[in-house]
Amino acid sequence: MTHILEADISVELTKNSKLKDIDFNNLPFGKVFSDHMLLCQYKDGAWNAPKVVPYQPITLDPSAKIFHYGQSIFEGMKAYKDKDSNVFLFRPLENWKRFNISSKRLAIPEIPEAYFMEGLKALLKADKDWIPTAPGSALYIRPFVFASGNGFHASPSDEYLFIIATAPSGAYFSGKVTVAIEEKYSRSANGGVGYAKAGGNYAGQFYPTQLAIEKGYNQVVWTDDTSHEYIEEAGAMNIFVRINDTLITAPTSDRILDGITRKSLIEIAKAEGIEVDVRKLKVSELVEAAKNGSLKEMFGSGTAAVISPISGFGYQGTDYELPELETSYAKILKTRITDIQYNRTEDPFGWRVKIQ
Amino acid sequence: MTHILEADISVELTKNSKLKDIDFNNLPFGKVFSDHMLLCQYKDGAWNAPKVVPYQPITLDPSAKIFHYGQSIFEGMKAYKDKDSNVFLFRPLENWKRFNISSKRLAIPEIPEAYFMEGLKALLKADKDWIPTAPGSALYIRPFVFASGNGFHASPSDEYLFIIATAPSGAYFSGKVTVAIEEKYSRSANGGVGYAKAGGNYAGQFYPTQLAIEKGYNQVVWTDDTSHEYIEEAGAMNIFVRINDTLITAPTSDRILDGITRKSLIEIAKAEGIEVDVRKLKVSELVEAAKNGSLKEMFGSGTAAVISPISGFGYQGTDYELPELETSYAKILKTRITDIQYNRTEDPFGWRVKIQ
Repeated sequence: MTHILEADISVELTKNSKLKDIDFNNLPFGKVFSDHMLLCQYKDGAWNAPKVVPYQPITLDPSAKIFHYGQSIFEGMKAYKDKDSNVFLFRPLENWKRFNISSKRLAIPEIPEAYFMEGLKALLKADKDWIPTAPGSALYIRPFVFASGNGFHASPSDEYLFIIATAPSGAYFSGKVTVAIEEKYSRSANGGVGYAKAGGNYAGQFYPTQLAIEKGYNQVVWTDDTSHEYIEEAGAMNIFVRINDTLITAPTSDRILDGITRKSLIEIAKAEGIEVDVRKLKVSELVEAAKNGSLKEMFGSGTAAVISPISGFGYQGTDYELPELETSYAKILKTRITDIQYNRTEDPFGWRVKIQ
Repeated sequence: MTHILEADISVELTKNSKLKDIDFNNLPFGKVFSDHMLLCQYKDGAWNAPKVVPYQPITLDPSAKIFHYGQSIFEGMKAYKDKDSNVFLFRPLENWKRFNISSKRLAIPEIPEAYFMEGLKALLKADKDWIPTAPGSALYIRPFVFASGNGFHASPSDEYLFIIATAPSGAYFSGKVTVAIEEKYSRSANGGVGYAKAGGNYAGQFYPTQLAIEKGYNQVVWTDDTSHEYIEEAGAMNIFVRINDTLITAPTSDRILDGITRKSLIEIAKAEGIEVDVRKLKVSELVEAAKNGSLKEMFGSGTAAVISPISGFGYQGTDYELPELETSYAKILKTRITDIQYNRTEDPFGWRVKIQ
């Protein structure tokens, strides 16, 4: 069975809501969890029907493959509430599609669209009061699937758990960040799993990021692992560079995540009359642009942070500062995309999905 | 506190031993688990004292970072029993050292030597009756550590669990295997985590391996991700190739695991008077050797399988068969290393460690 209606999803509501304990005006990012979660188990070759249950601990055998072989993937989404308390998602089918693209690469069974979408709707109905309304806040949504089957044999699991958990969240970053352009460590291989939202992609970034932080930067800009000559991603985000009035971002590949915020920003920028150049960008070109003053902006893009402006970068021992702009592309694009997401403007792209 | 004696480790013995239910003459690999495990928690910036407890489920919050960011590493070891029921480990300090090398790369706090070694000894004392004695069987030992702290922020966990679980196990592979030389997918990046026993390295191998299995092979031989011209690893093992009478294996790098079986076999082979050449090996050289008859053997090496002989390989649509040898290096080396491991012979290298 892969078709299911929201109304068919079993819902077990909590008897101990934590809602009253939460200060919705001072929300951290991803640390406070809503009352419920969606739970769906893969067993005996099939996904069982998803159900909404109270947010609860997960119990696993010590031999569960998630602990040993990193078989896990996830998505990041948000639910937005407008001033009339209508609830919206942003391009949710793109997340579902990428969820399955990631799953396939990690040898994880794919999730039927209805399980993902109707399950999510049922969950958000149960937790509608958890969607925050303070400026910049949203309900962060984390669909994930991991290997729950047992055994030390290095082979795909025969059981999985698909869960959607949510966290009312404030802003991911505060303020501008500085970045170090990485010359030694790499995020992903040609023919690897870099284009998937695989857990292991993130764990591998922590140590190089710690080294960058020790040197006074906030994040790492990843370059290709073969030559370290090309700009690829920034931390766990896609990266945009503005040289003169052109916005440049690397083309997606098997090393670069096909970011939904990234591709939405490309379309918005074009609609705004901004020239967008999707092409490989050499570090040397970036440095030259910083030196001759044509480098105007750099920013990361992703669901969590939306747009994260970069104030400067370090490369081969030299720090380059970016100018302070009155009207930056980052500001224009962030306003445009969040206005669409929060239903503060028309949505000419058809991206906003009203669910309540 | 990082010094601890075996005698100081608290031991809580099970009241419900599963020992009598196990058929020790028909053991699978890594599917039957012993009565106890070593458990050690990292919290508030320090590892707590390890303790031996009954083998038991682990309960985690759905936001635990292991589910989302793949922050986990492991080791593979074995305990061997000789005919007089003495118990031995094989180069265990090498596993502890690599455990910490892996941990560092994954931004996981390192484990003090005494926690690992004395903890392991205390565990094996509690479960000494679980060490099998049937030919080819051993107690497989799985030390692992994973991120148990909570939160959706993509940053290192502040809590971890270090566990050693054990599984009385029979042989890992049965019979010879055929391999496909990979030309599209990759195991690891330059500057990546390939040299670490990181969970994510294994998850990324499952899908390409499935594709190879669909084509009739058992395993993938990994090549470098830049050119796919060089032989690097075989499945989750190191790889050896014998051309004429020379044994060739790739040098370790940030993409290739520093296998303990690999480096032990190199030393044993040299002691046996076999010429060993640790160098990069081109796929084209392998194919040429297969064509002109100078390719005599290929085998994988690792703790689980010890030596896994390869009977043939596929490359660019052509299958190459390897000869059947009366006296193969694989057979000689496997006999030599297992004789040392099981205390059936002298140990001129000082690798065997008697623990009971």
